[in-house]
This record gives sequence, C-alpha cells and structure tokens, in this order.
Amino acid sequence: MGTVTGSVDRAGAEWLQYAYGPALFPPEATGSATLWRYRDLLPVPDGPVRYPVPVGGTPLLAVPALRSALAAPRLWVKDETRNPTASNKDRATAVVIEDGLRRGIGTITTASTGNAAVATAFGAAAAGLRAVIFVSTGCRPGKTALMTQAGAWVFQVHAGYAAAVELSRAAAREFGWLDRNTGANPLTVEAKKTVAFEVWEQLGRRLPDLLVVPVGDGPTLVALDKGFAELEHCGLTERRPRLIGVQSAHCQPLVREWAGQPATPDQLDPSGTAADGIAVLRPATGPAVLEAVRRGGGGMVAVSEDGLRHAALALARRAGVSAEPAGAATLAGWQAAVDQGLADRSECAVLLVTGREKAAGTPVDPSRVAVVETLDQVARALGAGELAAPAVGR
Amino acid sequence: MGTVTGSVDRAGAEWLQYAYGPALFPPEATGSATLWRYRDLLPVPDGPVRYPVPVGGTPLLAVPALRSALAAPRLWVKDETRNPTASNKDRATAVVIEDGLRRGIGTITTASTGNAAVATAFGAAAAGLRAVIFVSTGCRPGKTALMTQAGAWVFQVHAGYAAAVELSRAAAREFGWLDRNTGANPLTVEAKKTVAFEVWEQLGRRLPDLLVVPVGDGPTLVALDKGFAELEHCGLTERRPRLIGVQSAHCQPLVREWAGQPATPDQLDPSGTAADGIAVLRPATGPAVLEAVRRGGGGMVAVSEDGLRHAALALARRAGVSAEPAGAATLAGWQAAVDQGLADRSECAVLLVTGREKAAGTPVDPSRVAVVETLDQVARALGAGELAAPAVGR
Repeated sequence: MGTVTGSVDRAGAEWLQYAYGPALFPPEATGSATLWRYRDLLPVPDGPVRYPVPVGGTPLLAVPALRSALAAPRLWVKDETRNPTASNKDRATAVVIEDGLRRGIGTITTASTGNAAVATAFGAAAAGLRAVIFVSTGCRPGKTALMTQAGAWVFQVHAGYAAAVELSRAAAREFGWLDRNTGANPLTVEAKKTVAFEVWEQLGRRLPDLLVVPVGDGPTLVALDKGFAELEHCGLTERRPRLIGVQSAHCQPLVREWAGQPATPDQLDPSGTAADGIAVLRPATGPAVLEAVRRGGGGMVAVSEDGLRHAALALARRAGVSAEPAGAATLAGWQAAVDQGLADRSECAVLLVTGREKAAGTPVDPSRVAVVETLDQVARALGAGELAAPAVGR
Repeated sequence: MGTVTGSVDRAGAEWLQYAYGPALFPPEATGSATLWRYRDLLPVPDGPVRYPVPVGGTPLLAVPALRSALAAPRLWVKDETRNPTASNKDRATAVVIEDGLRRGIGTITTASTGNAAVATAFGAAAAGLRAVIFVSTGCRPGKTALMTQAGAWVFQVHAGYAAAVELSRAAAREFGWLDRNTGANPLTVEAKKTVAFEVWEQLGRRLPDLLVVPVGDGPTLVALDKGFAELEHCGLTERRPRLIGVQSAHCQPLVREWAGQPATPDQLDPSGTAADGIAVLRPATGPAVLEAVRRGGGGMVAVSEDGLRHAALALARRAGVSAEPAGAATLAGWQAAVDQGLADRSECAVLLVTGREKAAGTPVDPSRVAVVETLDQVARALGAGELAAPAVGR
C-alpha cells in the first residue's frame, strides 16, 4: 500500500522509507505498464489512482544500429521522451498531482528550466488543477508557449532560476499550493526512482553495470540511487549499478566539485549551452548527487556543445530517438566516460534520454504571462480572491 | 500467425483477408501492450518481431475535465501522440518496416505531408534502413528538419504532394524500395486498423457509438472501418460504430462529395489551413472513405481555422493533450457533428488525436535535401551505386 514508515536525510535530500521486503515489489508479468505498478513503494494511499493520464513504463530500447556504430553491444536507451509531455518530468508531476487530488488541493506550482513546467502545465490541465509556473526570463519561448497553451500561469523572474524557485516555494507556503519543486518535495524523488525499477525489470530482472544520467538540479540521479538501493533493501538484488552524471562543459558545478577543482566563470555559464534542461548553477540536490556517485564508484563528466550535437544526431540517426540537447547529454556523457576510463564500451550501460525537443504550434499567450519579483505581484496577477485552493475540477 | 488468405477490393482500397474467427484475437489481459498484440490479424510471419521500437498501445483517456466542460460524459480521447514520433503514422511505419526487415530490403520511401515522413525517417533510423522521403516544397520546415536530423534523404517536388507521391512510387518500383505510400501499400491499412482493436479492448471489450477521425488521404478512417468489420467477422461484436470524418473547411473534397455539392476553389486550398496533416486535394482512398461513412451511418464534417484553434486549446487545457491542428480536428469535428445533429453529446464517442506539434532543435541539414522532378535526379543525388537495396544494418 506504499505506506511510508519514516524518512532520513541523505546528504541534504529527504529519503522516504518503507517496510522493505520482496512483497513490496510486483510479481513478474502482472499489473500495469505505468509507474503505478510500483505503488507499494510509492507514498500513495489505497484506492484507485485518480491521475487521468498514464505515465512511465517507457521503452528500454536495444538500439541495434547504435550499438553497431559504437561497438557497444550491451548499450541500451531508456527513452523517457515516450512520456505524456515527452520528458521524464511527467513522473514526478503525476505523483505530486495524485497526492494533491487526494488532499483536495487545487493549485500546483513549480519553478523550472522548462520540461518540468511543461509537464506540470499539461498534467494539471488533465487533472483539473490550476498550474502556476515560475521561470527565469531566459526560458525558451517554445516551452513558455506550451505552458500557456495548457492554461498555466507563467511568472518570469529576472533574477534567474534560483530566484524563481524561491518565489515558487514561498507561494506554495503562503497560498497552500502543491509544491512540485524538486529538492523540496520528496514525492518527486519517489516518482523518479521508478525508472530504476523499470530498467531492472526490462533487463529481465538484471542490473546494468552503469547508468548515464544528465544532471541539472540532480534529483533524477539521486532518485536512481534510491531506487537501486531499495531493490537491495527488498532483497531482490545484491549490488548497485555505477551512476555517471553528465553536465555541460559550460555549466558544470558538480563535475568540478567531483574533480576537486574550482570552476572558472565559463564553466558556470548556463546561457553558454543549448542544454537548457541541465543548465543549473546551484543544483538543489548537489551534495546528494556527489555522495551517490562517490559511494557507488561512478563519476561526473562534462560534455561540449559539439559533443551534444553529435550525440543528438547519433540518437536520431542510429536509434530513431529525437532528443533535446539535455537529453542527448546521456550519450555524449557515455562517450566521455569511455574516453576517460570511467566506463568500458563492453559494459551493460543504460543511457537515460530525459527529454525531446518541444514546440508549440501556438505563440505564447500574453494574457497568462507576467514578469514578477514579489508574492504581491503574483497575487495581484491572479486576482486576490483566487489564491485559496479552488475546488478540484475548476 | 497472421496468414493472409487473400484480398478484396473495397472501393479502390485493397483489403487483405484472414481466416476470421475468435481465436485470431488475443485473450484478455495477455500479451504485449503494442500493436504486435494483434499479430494474428497482421500480415507478419512467425518469429520474433524485429522492429526495435515499441509502437501502439496508446492511451484511451477518460478526460474528466473536458467531459465536464462539454457536458459529454462519455467522451474519450485516443491519444496517438504517445507513439514514438508523436503521431499515428508510427503504426504503418512499423508494419511496413517489419516486412522490409523480413525481406532484406534496405530502403523505404514515402511521400508525405509531414508526419508520415517523420515517422518513416525515425523508424528507418531505428531499424537500420535508409529513408528516402518525397515532399511538396510547401512542407513545414520543422518537419523537414526532423527528417534530416534522422538521416533521411528529402526530395522536394514543386508540382505538389500528388506529384511527390507519384515520384516516390515510381522510385519504389524502379529501385526495389519498400513503398510506404498509403493507398498503395495495404500493409498501412493493416497497421492502422489496430486502433479499432485497442479502442474496443480499452473500453472493456465494448464498442463506442462513434469515432471522429481527421481525414487527409483517408486510410486511417478506412482502416478503422476494416478493424471494426474484422471484430464482427471474428464473432466478437455484433455491430459497428459510426465513423465521422473531419476535414478543414479550406480543403474539404470529401465533405463536399458526401454532401453532394461541388467544391468552390476556397474549399480546395491546402495552403489555407494550418491543418497541414489533412490538407490533401486528391485523397488516395477517397472512395473508400465515403463508402465506409455512408454504409455505417456516419458523416463528413468540415471545420474552420477558429474551430481548430479552439479545439487545440481545449485539448491542451482540459485534457492535457498537445495536438497539432490536424490532430485537434477530431474535437472540432465532434463539435460540428453535434451542432449538425450527426452526433449527440451523450453518446460514447472516441476522438482520435492523430498527432502533436513537432519541432526540431536543429535546422534543416541542407546536404540531405534537394528539389527534384525526375527519377534521374533522385538517382544522381543518391549516387548511382547506391540505389540497389543496401544490406540491412547499413
């Protein structure tokens, strides 16, 4: 039933705990093909799932042509672009909204570089919630247009992504909204860990040797660490795969920290990379990422813009997968890891393609967008009488 | 085993036939969640499926907020944007390529308004085939860029879509390539009919009252007709849902024909609608569409650009589904059908959202694009020695 027994702090990240045992994991060949398959390891009470859109259960592709081209016969691609809004952010969105639906909360908020915002906007729309998104003024117009198409309110913050997160969290506290911000809401890690479970099942209940994971704020990697740990706690496995985190050479705070070297300004320049999804200066779960990588014998690698472009092309032309730059980082990171001796091309490696390039057919809807600095401005934009959680279904 | 027993001509469309009976349909709660679930009703020989990307098994959404907004308590959305390249065209691509892989053919060709080309480019890339696509010079740059990103050759034809189809078919005949053109290859109808099977199973092995289907060339609607006919032939059902086909008011050859009225020039203007996916002047399976609609008591409706925009917004804001204009046509068409008395809002209706807006992060790759008129130009662009089907895996 997914009853949480407590929580522990793991390098600054809150890890929910369960009464671990093999009975918590679904038997083979049963149940749904969505992340709700693992509900006994999710903090979801009994009763039918209310979230109306199927999420997770994404393909693990054997990528024959890519394996051939790279002489990597045991390379796999976990294709998260097959989620509802074509990114892995749909998972956390589903679990947070499911919780909100159970508790009767009518508004969800998050700050985001883009994919989480799009996922939140569309997920909220499907579930009948209001979405209030905070972005930096640098957010890609295509992603902003998608948010407004889905009916979300979009508040742009000049001071950047970190300030957007602060404002979103403050609004959640002040107005009683669902807080979907990663690093803040442990439900997001719970949702993301299901990728580990799926990979294990899709490999025939076998572990890969390593996973290569794009790292922005870091919760995806942290959640994979938790997922593989839980398989062990449940008595189902006896080791854990290595985790290799990937950042852009232009925004690589965690790579530098792992290497024990100070970062230069050009290595802390989010605007310098096309991989906007992982261009985060102060990763929310940074310490937990480094702890997971170090403990498990993994590593952190940085990739160039050229590397990202080549990887995106290779994924398209050899695997039939359309990845945005942050998503293609997984393949570029694998190449870097092999070059640096952090991985061998003969190993069983899973590349996590986290998202696809997005477009909105419609332009940004200006009636849903405002530049803000304070909660007062947010409140005024939304209309004073509308702040309290409206009834679900509004 | 999916053994085809023969074929019949149905109003110009070739319908493959099987030894129909209940045993051809998979038992409940077994098998894969892809279209291969129905392989006993697909022309696929025994042996493991070789196509390396899962296709089909897309969600049938209960859309609670949209039902509420439309006072349509039994409205469903079949979300084909959840396929690999976010459109229903992935189905036909999979079945045609599976056939090609079995027969050792190394190149696939098609002409397309966009989605089929993108599906073909990415599907071929995944399967290790070469893709040679013919488009009109009016094809949207975003879709062309996706094709080249996936490594396809793109030949642009000034004389328009019909000429592109002719050239593609001629090339297939001349060079021994897989011909994926709808209306030409009966395998495409076989693939598309699986939507009918899925809808029936997803409704708990119950039939809807009607389906609303965007109509360009028409094979999607024709295939649904075949699928529901086959459920009857297998002894599993005793009636068939009504089929309502939707076209743009700016390009509505079949709506006019169904209404028995001549079309005016502004009603035959493909460039006049944002719904490029259904902007086809001379639908390849037109007679079969009209025959299916008439026989079943359905109808054809035309929708305005405003109607498309409102429908796309409603799908985004009330269902969390991001549909391109041609895909949103299904909801606009349902509205029109209700307004015209062709449907009642209390009926169990399935809206087929055929595709999502697409973007390529990369610009068009000019080395893969050429304007052509003749096969000679095609051959020269590809290089004379490369025309014969290269070995699979190239």
